[in-house]
Amino acid sequence: MIVLIPFKTSNPKSRLSKLLNEDERREFAYEMLLDVIDAIGDLAKVKVVSPEPLDLDVEVIKDSRGLDECINDRLKIVPRAIIMSDLPLLNKEVLERFFSQPGDVVIAPGRKGGTNMLLVRKTGFRVSYHYGSFLKHIRISKELGYSYKIFDSFFASVDVDDESDILELMIHGKGKRSWKFLRNLGFDVEFARTPRLIIPSN
Amino acid sequence: MIVLIPFKTSNPKSRLSKLLNEDERREFAYEMLLDVIDAIGDLAKVKVVSPEPLDLDVEVIKDSRGLDECINDRLKIVPRAIIMSDLPLLNKEVLERFFSQPGDVVIAPGRKGGTNMLLVRKTGFRVSYHYGSFLKHIRISKELGYSYKIFDSFFASVDVDDESDILELMIHGKGKRSWKFLRNLGFDVEFARTPRLIIPSN
Repeated sequence: MIVLIPFKTSNPKSRLSKLLNEDERREFAYEMLLDVIDAIGDLAKVKVVSPEPLDLDVEVIKDSRGLDECINDRLKIVPRAIIMSDLPLLNKEVLERFFSQPGDVVIAPGRKGGTNMLLVRKTGFRVSYHYGSFLKHIRISKELGYSYKIFDSFFASVDVDDESDILELMIHGKGKRSWKFLRNLGFDVEFARTPRLIIPSN
Repeated sequence: MIVLIPFKTSNPKSRLSKLLNEDERREFAYEMLLDVIDAIGDLAKVKVVSPEPLDLDVEVIKDSRGLDECINDRLKIVPRAIIMSDLPLLNKEVLERFFSQPGDVVIAPGRKGGTNMLLVRKTGFRVSYHYGSFLKHIRISKELGYSYKIFDSFFASVDVDDESDILELMIHGKGKRSWKFLRNLGFDVEFARTPRLIIPSN
């Protein structure tokens, strides 16, 4: 199995700009990418697709095109999995379960209608990542007459975009590189009434 | 297997009070409870624990005590599962997987550190549902020397508390009773840029 991980380096995680400055966000995004690569381990061969060169132990493919174009061009050969780089709660058990799901297409939903992981086993499938991609990917599968499976995973559903996702990382991500990065900056969780994210003061 | 579902009838789902009036919230909570009972089907025997009588096809146990006391008193006999009543995205496949997990204790996390489903197979375990129960239930298991398993499920993680959870129900819950209830009120999802919840105007 080959896993494609798209990774954007310019102004990453802009919705976290109230919590982290641009350098921190860049480093944080990189640590999450490393967490995803660590979780995949030797379950699959990883290829990171990025507009810029990256210092990684896995193959990096330079591609400056938009996300959909980037991925669709690489779905001429199957099977291929596409895993987002901001899923630090992934682990080996989740991914083993994901890779062993039946179906021509396997779709792991994120919150707010996104597609966090995708497994494509037949050529002809085209991704469309924006504007509610989860339901679109189901519709595309149906239109092609391809069988699809919804992959039910909480850890795969947490793509870290905003403050509420950081809270999930701090609760569930102990020991992860991205968790350590935030802990070193002073982030933590306080269980007062409901868990409250502790944000370091400057 | 016996599943306990705690259900509170007074002022339910108060965090949805901007979207639904009290009668609507009471009806919505009831529809979600029915969705959970439907999802369990004949996989287990359901007992709803509530301070007030309820018109249901399953056994209703009257108990006016607080949640922890209610449940702990019923963990003298095991195995017991405790499933929250606001998990409308549950389905048979999720629950079959849940019931077949190994471990003295199985814990399904909700967002924000909650425990949405719990399966207890040894006596002596005590629940503590408030203030970050997920990590507390792990700690309690460890202190007792009990093995525990974290159950990884997106559908079990969505307890409908606030507007963002309603969005998940409208995306993933097509055909559910609670989904139909909201659709009949005018709720829907619009995939403009990111999915936006459509709230009926009064």
